Amino acid sequence: MEMKTQEEAATISIDVTQVRPWGHGSRVGIIGGHGEMGRLFAGFFQGCDCHVEVADIGSHRSNREVLQEADIVLFAVPLHETVSIIRDLVPLVQPHQLLMDVTSLKMAPVEEMLRSPASVVGLHPMFGGRVATLEGQTLVACPVRIASERWLPLRQTFVDAGMRVKECTPEEHDRMMSIIQVLFHMTTMLMGRVLREMDVDIDATLEFTSPSYRLEMSQMGRMFAQSAALYAAITQMNVNTAEILCLLKAGLEAYETWYRTQDLEAFMEDFQRSAGHLGGFCQRAYRESSEILDFVVRLARQPDGSF
Amino acid sequence: MEMKTQEEAATISIDVTQVRPWGHGSRVGIIGGHGEMGRLFAGFFQGCDCHVEVADIGSHRSNREVLQEADIVLFAVPLHETVSIIRDLVPLVQPHQLLMDVTSLKMAPVEEMLRSPASVVGLHPMFGGRVATLEGQTLVACPVRIASERWLPLRQTFVDAGMRVKECTPEEHDRMMSIIQVLFHMTTMLMGRVLREMDVDIDATLEFTSPSYRLEMSQMGRMFAQSAALYAAITQMNVNTAEILCLLKAGLEAYETWYRTQDLEAFMEDFQRSAGHLGGFCQRAYRESSEILDFVVRLARQPDGSF
Repeated sequence: MEMKTQEEAATISIDVTQVRPWGHGSRVGIIGGHGEMGRLFAGFFQGCDCHVEVADIGSHRSNREVLQEADIVLFAVPLHETVSIIRDLVPLVQPHQLLMDVTSLKMAPVEEMLRSPASVVGLHPMFGGRVATLEGQTLVACPVRIASERWLPLRQTFVDAGMRVKECTPEEHDRMMSIIQVLFHMTTMLMGRVLREMDVDIDATLEFTSPSYRLEMSQMGRMFAQSAALYAAITQMNVNTAEILCLLKAGLEAYETWYRTQDLEAFMEDFQRSAGHLGGFCQRAYRESSEILDFVVRLARQPDGSF
Repeated sequence: MEMKTQEEAATISIDVTQVRPWGHGSRVGIIGGHGEMGRLFAGFFQGCDCHVEVADIGSHRSNREVLQEADIVLFAVPLHETVSIIRDLVPLVQPHQLLMDVTSLKMAPVEEMLRSPASVVGLHPMFGGRVATLEGQTLVACPVRIASERWLPLRQTFVDAGMRVKECTPEEHDRMMSIIQVLFHMTTMLMGRVLREMDVDIDATLEFTSPSYRLEMSQMGRMFAQSAALYAAITQMNVNTAEILCLLKAGLEAYETWYRTQDLEAFMEDFQRSAGHLGGFCQRAYRESSEILDFVVRLARQPDGSF
């Protein structure tokens, strides 16, 4: 067998077919491993026979140490800090490593990870860190730089845990999230803000409870029970937010004009055009929401059902 | 026994202590009795041994005939037509009668009914006409002109059917509905409008389903499956809508400024102030919404659970 020169050896060390597996048996380093999502994925990788090391504020090992010893590095840090934490560590990243993050936006974190020589997959779990099971949950994946023979087995480990893996580009993801997250969360925040500005007594409004209102208030309260930093970042850091804000404002202006002129016809026509866009979905939604509202009524009737 | 003069007899005929009961055994005339809410209340009054007569488009009896023969007249007509239908009939109303309506606003319909010499109670059922049971449902009542010895037994017939009766003034009602209905329905409509303007493929977004998003879309679809006229009237005919629109717009403008300057701190502070206003409600909402989301996940897993 020939002796290899140092240069040849270096080449071999970054040959993706020679490196340790990404999946079963990997050494996984989780940056931000003490957060809810970090703990959830630590458990997931341990269940895949991986050796998991964790770095977080107060942990005895530093981000750098954990990163340097890992085959897979998973960033599970708050969204508004993700880019700066990745940026800080990129100079230490080796080509044989796989970088992944689990934040709610994909363009900026993925762009930052791509500055390294490593393989890169952006992830967005469409569930919170406190879920009881991964079974049936959706995991969005952006496998932007990874050999398919290495991605497919890794993807399978997610599928084996019961997750639905939905692949797309970071741009497609952030566009989709401008609807799923920005549009819905921002209007929920806005409603919470209006309730505050009007100094509304929530308990007094609940005296007038309809199941729909209870359900809506329940979802709003859920959001405000969670992290301000997360929701601020989700809505403020999406490149498509400007467009959403602009469309929301245009809609409000139309409503204001129709209200001032009491133009019920214009309002009804606008309503019907939106209903037309949603199409057959509305009837399916009516059926599903009826089942959900029945469930809410049952919850409210429980002995401890007072809100 | 003395003979009564015609004038005395007329006086006696409007003496509230002499008239037929309002409740069990009454003659009830329902204007708009073929609609969902009209049919629901026809069933309710029949269950109270009342004789129910119905007028509606295409019925063989006219509004006027039905009104003139009734002890209780119930207006169950579309909100945007309620005031003009009441106005048309007011000249025929007798002092011994009781006028009630079941529309979603109370100030304007009640004001119109008060132009008659009759007793007046405005009602707002906080449920749809298609509910399976009245048990546990909330009925808002504005007993604006009725002797309490006549209102209390009538109120009891609603309670006996399982309804929670919440009393308030028409002004209090419409103020409360500016939050419960205008704020929530208008933002839902607004979101539907943005989805349309962006030409969003709903099925494509549902590929990225989280239980929360599915729940939100399900509620939105439910609204758009219903009557444009009803939702237009609910949001456009409330006297408090101007204030809601103004506050929504001010909130959007703040978000826009913070987005443009990427002022995450300001956004987080605003979020936390709203959370502070909601207070302990948020944690109760978090628990309740978790149960609801688990239910949504179970629905989605059913064989026919595709949306």
